[in-house]
Amino acid sequence: MRAEIIITGTELLTGEVINTNAQYLGQQLSQLGVEVILHTTVGDCWKRMAEVFRQALGCSDVIITTGGLGPTTDDLTKETVAEVLELPMTLDEAARVLTNPVGTAPGVLLEYQEKLIICLPGPPFELIPTFATSVIPYLSKLVGRSKWTISRLFKLTGISESVVQDRLKDLCLLENPHISFMAKPGEVHVRITGNAEEPDKPPKMVDELAEKVHTRLESFIFGVDNEVLEDVVGNLLAETGSTIALAESCTGGLISARLTEIPGSSRYLLGGVVAYDNKVKEEILQVPRHVLENRGAVSEQTAVAMAQGVRKLIGADFGLAVTGIAGPGGGSLEKPQGLVFIALAAPDSTGCRKFLFPGERAAVRQGTANAALNMVRLYLLDKAI
Amino acid sequence: MRAEIIITGTELLTGEVINTNAQYLGQQLSQLGVEVILHTTVGDCWKRMAEVFRQALGCSDVIITTGGLGPTTDDLTKETVAEVLELPMTLDEAARVLTNPVGTAPGVLLEYQEKLIICLPGPPFELIPTFATSVIPYLSKLVGRSKWTISRLFKLTGISESVVQDRLKDLCLLENPHISFMAKPGEVHVRITGNAEEPDKPPKMVDELAEKVHTRLESFIFGVDNEVLEDVVGNLLAETGSTIALAESCTGGLISARLTEIPGSSRYLLGGVVAYDNKVKEEILQVPRHVLENRGAVSEQTAVAMAQGVRKLIGADFGLAVTGIAGPGGGSLEKPQGLVFIALAAPDSTGCRKFLFPGERAAVRQGTANAALNMVRLYLLDKAI
Repeated sequence: MRAEIIITGTELLTGEVINTNAQYLGQQLSQLGVEVILHTTVGDCWKRMAEVFRQALGCSDVIITTGGLGPTTDDLTKETVAEVLELPMTLDEAARVLTNPVGTAPGVLLEYQEKLIICLPGPPFELIPTFATSVIPYLSKLVGRSKWTISRLFKLTGISESVVQDRLKDLCLLENPHISFMAKPGEVHVRITGNAEEPDKPPKMVDELAEKVHTRLESFIFGVDNEVLEDVVGNLLAETGSTIALAESCTGGLISARLTEIPGSSRYLLGGVVAYDNKVKEEILQVPRHVLENRGAVSEQTAVAMAQGVRKLIGADFGLAVTGIAGPGGGSLEKPQGLVFIALAAPDSTGCRKFLFPGERAAVRQGTANAALNMVRLYLLDKAI
Repeated sequence: MRAEIIITGTELLTGEVINTNAQYLGQQLSQLGVEVILHTTVGDCWKRMAEVFRQALGCSDVIITTGGLGPTTDDLTKETVAEVLELPMTLDEAARVLTNPVGTAPGVLLEYQEKLIICLPGPPFELIPTFATSVIPYLSKLVGRSKWTISRLFKLTGISESVVQDRLKDLCLLENPHISFMAKPGEVHVRITGNAEEPDKPPKMVDELAEKVHTRLESFIFGVDNEVLEDVVGNLLAETGSTIALAESCTGGLISARLTEIPGSSRYLLGGVVAYDNKVKEEILQVPRHVLENRGAVSEQTAVAMAQGVRKLIGADFGLAVTGIAGPGGGSLEKPQGLVFIALAAPDSTGCRKFLFPGERAAVRQGTANAALNMVRLYLLDKAI
């Protein structure tokens, strides 16, 4: 089964916004075993949209559009689809309305002359729940009788992409299943993908290769498929009945924001202190003034005092603290941009690690957040800090 | 001058990698005044690539391809271009080689029958320097004598997309310049785009329309073009020499994380408290226990006490506090998911507003962060809280 994705939105053509919908739909369709052959992005111009849609009808079995369902005059997807198909705008009988659990513009699913046409809302926070609740179950059934693609994703932290590639050098020569890589700040993703005509074969091939990859990289793998680090750490905290408090300097609340993205995180995250100013480190977290003056705000001693201070202040089992130089300013030869100290105060001991993260401010901050969460993960897995 | 971008790479179709090249090229071309009419992403399949390229030749003046220039067997862009143009593979005379300052695969620039064809390497760290050093100077010269596109973007908060559309109903009928809309959690974007044959006309037309839009929506506009709310608020705080401290419950550090994304934010953001657990609200922020017990953690009284508490604790000019129900759990008939109270404690007074944000957890949290930052913006602009 072949699919095309048609994304509408001038803001995507001009690069004002990055095309996360294309990525999401590409991922989901591939996981369902649907072959995606084309993404097209068009502006809010119905003529061009009609052209692209007409061509897609000639090539693909499934056509998914995003955007142009809203109430404004530049929202013309349904009208365009109806015109190309020469259907009246009273689509009700042929089409299924896809409930949009979040927004006001519902999607539409239409079976028309052996083709499946799915129109989704544009905003990702509306598109994703609409697709997940209505389209995935529908497509899963359809795909049951066609070609299968199976993919498995390992997410790693604490290791660079080139070292990962080196460790898997021989396995990278395989074509089906094959291995691909992606680097993100503080993370490396390793994907294993297999294709087959029958549903039985690929899981086995993919499983075997995944097993090999897992064995070689085990200590760096924090999650698989859709798992994110904050999920994994949150689950470990919940399972062990532990609570945590955060003291963040250079990340400015990012670690806490990521942990609290997970519903139910209030079970283990009690709270935290964003200690941007040194006065906050000293007065609220009780970092001794002589430590700040003699060792500096970015030092092992400060990180340790912050972790112990926030643990005590908030009364949590764990205190996790980060202090570093996110840049672009504030760096020196001795303490360059990217230098970060991360400390974890546990009931029995406090550990601290020094990092030097490459990249710009945002990459340093995300890298710091990942490394900090990973320290908690490793501790809870009963490994050394 | 109209352009199409053709991106090759199976890893983009399957969503394994996000399409940053499309965004980068879209931005750069728009800034140069080239109208981007289509992005197409194709796999490493030369037949489909040839089809897409042939269609692009029929529609656009500039065609940019990315990827497929490497040494491996699935790198076929040059061969495909040569075949469609019916040129021999000794392109040297008609084409310019674009030096790739980083990688080994150089790009190609080819003028052919009034069309400009540019083939760039796929990896972003090779594409960007190649484009910047060789293509931008070339296109700048070309565009000087051709058509201009100018666009202006207004970013709004505190108003819904449909209300914006209603207020601009008559102006939406215009075709050149024209208005387009985009909704994000807690934000609405209004873009004005104008095209013209001469460089003098569009700025004037676009300026005039922008002026009208601005007048009608002024109090909701927080920024233009690339400005983000945290930038605008940060600048206002810096300009007025004010400091701020945050007390976050349902956003869990998100507001603070967003403010500290801006380099130099340590000038005005002293720190904050993530008060997820009620004990943190009570013991650290000094929210009276009877308020928490009688009014609840999600109440105007708690928000006000949090704002005043964090302002005093950290010694900042402003205390900004949010408390609400991000969901999916924790809601009730009386206090549903999306209910949020935001309080701003200023030197002279404290204000509090009640919101009901639509959508899921992530949308509620981003909407809350935007509304909270906007309260600070409005206060600093000397308007009512």
